[in-house]
Amino acid sequence: MTHTPRANTSLATQAAEGAPDLAANSAFSQAERDAVYRAIFERRDMRHFAGGSVAPDAMRRLLTAAHHAPSVGFMQPWRFVRVASRALRTQLQALVEQERVLTARALGQREDEFMRLKVEGLLEAAEVWAVALADGREKHVFGRRTLPQMDLASAACAIQNLWLAARAEGLGVGWVSLFDPIAVADLLHMPAGAQPIALLCIGPVDAFYDEPMLQKERWTQRCALDDLIFEDTWGKHPRVTV
Amino acid sequence: MTHTPRANTSLATQAAEGAPDLAANSAFSQAERDAVYRAIFERRDMRHFAGGSVAPDAMRRLLTAAHHAPSVGFMQPWRFVRVASRALRTQLQALVEQERVLTARALGQREDEFMRLKVEGLLEAAEVWAVALADGREKHVFGRRTLPQMDLASAACAIQNLWLAARAEGLGVGWVSLFDPIAVADLLHMPAGAQPIALLCIGPVDAFYDEPMLQKERWTQRCALDDLIFEDTWGKHPRVTV
Repeated sequence: MTHTPRANTSLATQAAEGAPDLAANSAFSQAERDAVYRAIFERRDMRHFAGGSVAPDAMRRLLTAAHHAPSVGFMQPWRFVRVASRALRTQLQALVEQERVLTARALGQREDEFMRLKVEGLLEAAEVWAVALADGREKHVFGRRTLPQMDLASAACAIQNLWLAARAEGLGVGWVSLFDPIAVADLLHMPAGAQPIALLCIGPVDAFYDEPMLQKERWTQRCALDDLIFEDTWGKHPRVTV
Repeated sequence: MTHTPRANTSLATQAAEGAPDLAANSAFSQAERDAVYRAIFERRDMRHFAGGSVAPDAMRRLLTAAHHAPSVGFMQPWRFVRVASRALRTQLQALVEQERVLTARALGQREDEFMRLKVEGLLEAAEVWAVALADGREKHVFGRRTLPQMDLASAACAIQNLWLAARAEGLGVGWVSLFDPIAVADLLHMPAGAQPIALLCIGPVDAFYDEPMLQKERWTQRCALDDLIFEDTWGKHPRVTV
């Protein structure tokens, strides 16, 4: 079952061609704002995929969205490796399965509970992509001298853009981090200094979870936002609700 | 000048109250998809702010968007500290200014060029918020045993949600990472183990840059996306354009 979005997203298509015709400074309409919030609230970390495929132009739009993320000092540290080979995909899934078992043991009392969760859809998803930080990042000092890890933060912003664009396109995405990064880097022949940060499962799904799967499965629940907001001093909550 | 969005974003307001009425599985319309891509492409890292204020309900919507980001093992590591005190804001800006000079020196040949850039709007922005990773993160093993830095990746996704929601609401955001995290943690009385990752400037702007400021100022330019996409092996570009 091929997933072809009903029509081009003209803005994204233009952006993919390098010159989007942005409204740039006109206000977003209420409907536009609602759509942005809708993508944010309906996005899920998917582990259940429905096979099929993702049309190349749709995949291009998702990568273009990622590529328009913010990056520290505009360094654009992100690299995308499509896992096209089925054999390679199977090898990567085996690495993830190994780590799943090791993580379970490290969880102690929650080992059995963790082992019952479906934590990835690598064999079922239409597309699997590795996202990595490029090699040679040490020369990028702007914004990183005291916080070198801002390269990872930037790449995460790119993945989040891809994730939201995918949701808007009706495609599921799951971010898998259960792997030994050295083993994955070896499998993909990454140069010294490059670091894999994600295996992304992307593709059609039967349905999006109506709440995060880990909440539905009672692994944990969403915190109260008020507990996470302080004012001027850690631990001091604002007197007026923000 | 108070920035009050013209009307509530009803979906976000519902979400802020804890129970959004999601369409969950109906397809996004073309217009909804375009709106999501529009936010992604028009989002900018702003350094020029127009003072004013952000209405508390709008700020709440932005934080709610952040709070609905993905997080490794659903750990929700993000904490938000509003910098309400003008004196504290001034102290933080002084720390950023110190780091700006140190970064400039570390840039060698590009020192003077860097010093001419406006890299933050901490004194002009309506709101300043510190984003930090919570203390006690070591117990969160799910998805982090081999990649503990996935906590930072999660918090970056939260910031990206806030950033896109803000753009849709017509508000500028700038992520400042030019600071000594230990000094900032001290100023905000963060507990051991908590780590600041961002100082966010948020608020009304006169105009959004039509391209990234660092590109406009010729610090660097956007890479060609095709150069960043590989297939199965690092360095091997796909034969068919994805």
